Amino acid sequence: MKLNIALLAGDGIGPEVINEAVKVSDAIAQKFGHEITWKPALTGAAAIDAVGEPYPDATHEVCKNADAVLFGAIGHPKYDNDPSAPVRPEQGLLKMRKALGLFANVRPTFTFPSLLDKSPLKRERIEGTDLVFLRELTGGIYFGEKGRKDNGDTAYDNCVYTRAEVQRLAKKGFELAMTRSKKLCCVDKANVLETSRLWRETVQAMEKDYPEVEVSYEFVDAVAMRLVQWPNSYDVLITENLFGDILTDEASVISGSMGLMPSASIGAEVSLFEPIHGSYPQATGLNIANPMATILSAAMMFENFGLMEEGKAMRDAVNKALEAGVVTEDLANGGKAYGTKEVGDWLAANV
Amino acid sequence: MKLNIALLAGDGIGPEVINEAVKVSDAIAQKFGHEITWKPALTGAAAIDAVGEPYPDATHEVCKNADAVLFGAIGHPKYDNDPSAPVRPEQGLLKMRKALGLFANVRPTFTFPSLLDKSPLKRERIEGTDLVFLRELTGGIYFGEKGRKDNGDTAYDNCVYTRAEVQRLAKKGFELAMTRSKKLCCVDKANVLETSRLWRETVQAMEKDYPEVEVSYEFVDAVAMRLVQWPNSYDVLITENLFGDILTDEASVISGSMGLMPSASIGAEVSLFEPIHGSYPQATGLNIANPMATILSAAMMFENFGLMEEGKAMRDAVNKALEAGVVTEDLANGGKAYGTKEVGDWLAANV
Ligand SMILES: CC(C)[C@H](C(=O)O)[C@@H](O)C(=O)O
Ligand SMILES: CC(C)[C@H](C(=O)O)[C@@H](O)C(=O)O
Repeated sequence: MKLNIALLAGDGIGPEVINEAVKVSDAIAQKFGHEITWKPALTGAAAIDAVGEPYPDATHEVCKNADAVLFGAIGHPKYDNDPSAPVRPEQGLLKMRKALGLFANVRPTFTFPSLLDKSPLKRERIEGTDLVFLRELTGGIYFGEKGRKDNGDTAYDNCVYTRAEVQRLAKKGFELAMTRSKKLCCVDKANVLETSRLWRETVQAMEKDYPEVEVSYEFVDAVAMRLVQWPNSYDVLITENLFGDILTDEASVISGSMGLMPSASIGAEVSLFEPIHGSYPQATGLNIANPMATILSAAMMFENFGLMEEGKAMRDAVNKALEAGVVTEDLANGGKAYGTKEVGDWLAANV
Repeated sequence: MKLNIALLAGDGIGPEVINEAVKVSDAIAQKFGHEITWKPALTGAAAIDAVGEPYPDATHEVCKNADAVLFGAIGHPKYDNDPSAPVRPEQGLLKMRKALGLFANVRPTFTFPSLLDKSPLKRERIEGTDLVFLRELTGGIYFGEKGRKDNGDTAYDNCVYTRAEVQRLAKKGFELAMTRSKKLCCVDKANVLETSRLWRETVQAMEKDYPEVEVSYEFVDAVAMRLVQWPNSYDVLITENLFGDILTDEASVISGSMGLMPSASIGAEVSLFEPIHGSYPQATGLNIANPMATILSAAMMFENFGLMEEGKAMRDAVNKALEAGVVTEDLANGGKAYGTKEVGDWLAANV
């Protein structure tokens, strides 16, 4: 396969972890006879510094014409203390999601036996957890009309969803459930919100098309509780944009393996793959960042092209590295810590 | 003191736990020379069944004219599977909050040393946790305009906040922080929402009036994570209605003592006190429900009247009961389980 991949390294440790993902992806490509052309482009604070915009048109062109986007991380402390700054890295993120139509954010939370003790939860609570959130990513209150009235004393944000948006996301959820344990949980606040009632009735109407999938409906506050109590009781969960923002982050810390969690944002034309960890500015340039989440995101990218063996080879290599203790300092547990580059080298040699 | 207390027992185990709270409150009143007149009124499914309305006008009259409201729990399974049913118990709850102007929901999360092992979190993560959420309760997306367009295919919910609403809630937060460790965390999503930016700028402008309070600003998704990782790093948190709904429920399960957590909803004229557990329909009438959260809610009620010793006496009695093992089956840990009534009797005798 010939693959054109847009490479958005971003800020902080982004460039370092992206480098290792490129290294391991190239090793996979060579092993399986694919040809990857990487197309670097600017994003985040790096792009603001260079051209005054967090998601420049030139970057959009590169992404739009690529087969997929591999993304590092964005965010820089100089933008952190002023959420009303006229230009912020996050705006680039939102603009990119909308412009590329990345409507479904896929956020798995799973455990690695060797890392269970890193979880804040007791072992018996977290063992066996393997769930996936599908978060709607281009609608809801993130993109509704917002503004001020009454000389700035009243603020408003409008949350809007259409049936078609819900169907598009729910369809991915049902399909994913069919490949897993056939359990789907629709997370909403249908006892209060009209948008949630639209979500619920739309999903209910789709149940007949997937008779094998057992669907449950839970309120967002109840899910926020049960995620901490019995995370392994969930499989596939679908939800709207803001609930997804909160719940996927909550879910990410329960496993103890947050530094290893990949994600995908699926669009109709092009999809994007990125680690869920942030830009971790303090670690920039120190060769200590853990590249595994980015490498597992690249594995999701291969699998999204239907290259299942390639993805599996990458995931197997990560598991082997964890077992062999070839890990960065965040996972070293007092033992030997490898550098970002050395972990990448080892994985490239072992896929 | 002469106190008129509206008594809204509600559904499920509501009436049983309310009975015990009345019993213990009466014992306190006798001991300290107060006179409580209880005014029972209908609410929830019980009110729908009786008069077709979850928060009837007659109940509102009773509450409005009372010095405080003691509330059990509402919700009944027959309303659970149809969030669009024309009349639902939750609507009564929302109507009551709005009509009584209960703008600040006070939700403490604390730990009992004897119950630490019930927490899903590891002991070292949860030990020493003692935080309070102040959730705005009468604004935001709960009460904004909502509806459908495009023949029902588009749904919307509007989130609105005014500066005055934020100030009113934040003032309570600053005041509470002053009585505790002087740390206040404002939880918002100011990187995306205009209402959050109004929250943040309003709280920032109030900082100068409370120079001793150290204020931090965190995004809701980050708080959803840190609550699981380091709950004891928080003290007082203020937030808007929907974020508060999700985060207070998340916080409630981390302590291991959810069945014991009280709450208050503060209004300008009258305030309401209720356990955070639900109506637990399966346990109705079995004399097994744990009345302690309701009794601790009554303790908050006394303290809200400035009767600090009375509140403390109730809390001390609960601690003694826990130590003496005078507990319902949820806390019995295989040991002897007392009935709801017996726990109430013991507490009334020991305050
Ligand atoms: C940075 C922010 C705008 C973003 C979001 O809220 O979507 C982030 O929290 C995420 O989840 O990717
Ligand atoms: C029942 C529901 C409307 C309510 C809310 O969302 O406020 C409940 O979850 C709560 O937190 O009291």
